[in-house]
Amino acid sequence: MQTPWAERYAQRTRRMRSSAVRELLKLTELPDVISFAGGLPAPEVFPVERFAEGFNKVMAEFGARALQYGRTEGYTPLREMIAERSSRYGINIEPDNVLITSGSQQALDLIGKVFVNPGDHIMVERPTYLGALQAWNAYQAEYVSADTDVDGYVPASVAEKIRTGPKFIYALPNFQNPSGVTMSLERRKALLEQADHYGVPILEDDPYGQLRYEGDHLPPLVNLDAQSRSHNGARYSGNVIYLSTFSKTLSPGVRLGWIVAPAEVIQKLVQAKQGTDLHTSTVSQMVAYEVAAEGFLDQHVKIIRAVYRERRDTMLAALRAHFPAGITWTEPRGGLFLWLTFPEWMNANDVLKAAIEQKVAFVPGESFFADGTGQNTARLNFSNATPERIDEGVKRLARCLEVLMAAARP
Amino acid sequence: MQTPWAERYAQRTRRMRSSAVRELLKLTELPDVISFAGGLPAPEVFPVERFAEGFNKVMAEFGARALQYGRTEGYTPLREMIAERSSRYGINIEPDNVLITSGSQQALDLIGKVFVNPGDHIMVERPTYLGALQAWNAYQAEYVSADTDVDGYVPASVAEKIRTGPKFIYALPNFQNPSGVTMSLERRKALLEQADHYGVPILEDDPYGQLRYEGDHLPPLVNLDAQSRSHNGARYSGNVIYLSTFSKTLSPGVRLGWIVAPAEVIQKLVQAKQGTDLHTSTVSQMVAYEVAAEGFLDQHVKIIRAVYRERRDTMLAALRAHFPAGITWTEPRGGLFLWLTFPEWMNANDVLKAAIEQKVAFVPGESFFADGTGQNTARLNFSNATPERIDEGVKRLARCLEVLMAAARP
Repeated sequence: MQTPWAERYAQRTRRMRSSAVRELLKLTELPDVISFAGGLPAPEVFPVERFAEGFNKVMAEFGARALQYGRTEGYTPLREMIAERSSRYGINIEPDNVLITSGSQQALDLIGKVFVNPGDHIMVERPTYLGALQAWNAYQAEYVSADTDVDGYVPASVAEKIRTGPKFIYALPNFQNPSGVTMSLERRKALLEQADHYGVPILEDDPYGQLRYEGDHLPPLVNLDAQSRSHNGARYSGNVIYLSTFSKTLSPGVRLGWIVAPAEVIQKLVQAKQGTDLHTSTVSQMVAYEVAAEGFLDQHVKIIRAVYRERRDTMLAALRAHFPAGITWTEPRGGLFLWLTFPEWMNANDVLKAAIEQKVAFVPGESFFADGTGQNTARLNFSNATPERIDEGVKRLARCLEVLMAAARP
Repeated sequence: MQTPWAERYAQRTRRMRSSAVRELLKLTELPDVISFAGGLPAPEVFPVERFAEGFNKVMAEFGARALQYGRTEGYTPLREMIAERSSRYGINIEPDNVLITSGSQQALDLIGKVFVNPGDHIMVERPTYLGALQAWNAYQAEYVSADTDVDGYVPASVAEKIRTGPKFIYALPNFQNPSGVTMSLERRKALLEQADHYGVPILEDDPYGQLRYEGDHLPPLVNLDAQSRSHNGARYSGNVIYLSTFSKTLSPGVRLGWIVAPAEVIQKLVQAKQGTDLHTSTVSQMVAYEVAAEGFLDQHVKIIRAVYRERRDTMLAALRAHFPAGITWTEPRGGLFLWLTFPEWMNANDVLKAAIEQKVAFVPGESFFADGTGQNTARLNFSNATPERIDEGVKRLARCLEVLMAAARP
């Protein structure tokens, strides 16, 4: 029998399904499973001591203020720090261009709340970040998927799909989740030109930009956009909203992200956030500020890079050594993920079932496609497991694939 | 010139206005203003030492786990504690009936996301909590306002308005924000009967229930509903969703609230929360658990009650001593607020303008009415200012009112 509340779900809840990722995360909690599912940072690199000192300092110095309600916009010194860090390389960002959010998932939710009408189309990469689709499904968004290759959005596909009139273009230019692909400088410029030409704004999501393991840093879309407008130091007021987070550099558990946008857009987002959760935890913001300050963040990111680079290299080496022919993968220059493409006939869900029996897990790629394709793809995370377990896990996965491929031979 | 993003706000943002409360909070930050606006707890009663110990303990014992991603549902020991506390007095609540939220504002937002279709009517008290209207305006809710008196919802008005077919009934039975009114036991039973008769579920919002300064504790609607269904210890699966928070008992800055609901409803809310902010801060939840444990919460609430009782008494005494005839107020038995009714001809916005000049602030009542009435009402907060400042503030306000009333005389 249904309860009175359960009879009354809104239309939008029909599109809220418990995601494949989430169900899988439950399985991967078993300690004997080697998990390439999830997107968890390595707990070994969390700056636990520095956080412990930070909490001590904040409670000793601020006391009751750290436990009181705060401003919806965020803790002023933290907004100042982010504005200053964002103002590198030819762009002028002031604190009132910054909104602190409860993780960058909340930034995606607030963007949906403020900009998406039911039925609005959003242009997304194929594949794209699952969490963004989950956030915007709640606002009854529709999607138009443009093709990507190893350099990101393919301009010809963008040109074709942009004529459907998307509300905005969603882009993850650095070490994309799920594919690990990085948008080249040329492609970044091309996307900005196309967006400008058709008058479509861009939402740039950059959780992993700091985690580059090789090659040169590429400027974010928001910086390129600012430079092309050459406002001579005027405040940024262009075509790009930029999102980032401390989840991959300091701690995901404290739930701290931010939005950089024109000040009038920030004001609207602040109003939406006020009705959503009033503000992000005061003490978390104060502690993140203390932890990141005095150059610690930049130093700490170097440690993370070294650890993750080794894990990426281990995974790539194991794939080369053990995987059967007919399966391809991306070679990410940073981030947390790489992307497998199985033969056309192979379904990643079947691979996962076999893999779970062999105590290894990953995420089938289908949930990352807004257009329902991608059945023969999969995402592997390399940040959370040790190199030894990565090697062993890839071996187990290779054995599953060999068995499935042998069984399929006539 | 508008930026490309600013040209693209969704329809729902038209209803997001920067609230009167928010604009006023800015003015009341000036240190020489005595503020009865806002709803801030007294910082003097925050258990700063206990929180400092809690952070130390959590970082020392859990370390990296406290900084890692957590489950969307919330930290298990905290859910268990809340389930156990909620299971007092004839109701069986298990941990999977509990969802931890980022403050109870997020609970209101998630309820809107999961249950409200554009144009749905929600029955609210006149007046009702402004933050709930802000949360649900984002989902394009409409409202039907039923009358209240000093005992809460008036059954005759509920009977009349419930025929419009509201999606649910929103009720704040204890020391309501903004009016300070408490729903009597008789009225609680009447509301449950009416809701049951018409098949309309109830959302019970109870942030202040622990802060009673006189009289006996009255059972929450959710408990009365459970008892009337007499399931003999079966899991609660009734007509009421119950919300509460640590914001008024431990700290609002850590942003921790919770929802108690039938397990299937919690599952739907979990999916919505996953797309909204993934989960609430891991370390905040762990610390709140450590702070509340071992009976500390119940002991600490006694201290808060003593402090706020004195402030309420001071405010009531000052109103009696200084306020001109023709103005009435409620006499709350708990909570943080009382409610003024000026003469019909008087507009609270005019009073506020005069008050700000005299360095005293409050919130005009109009924003708490979903039906656009209430121009001659105002909310006074008595938790945040010291008794000395409360007395002085009421005196200043009385002088403003006398001047306005004298000027209006023929």
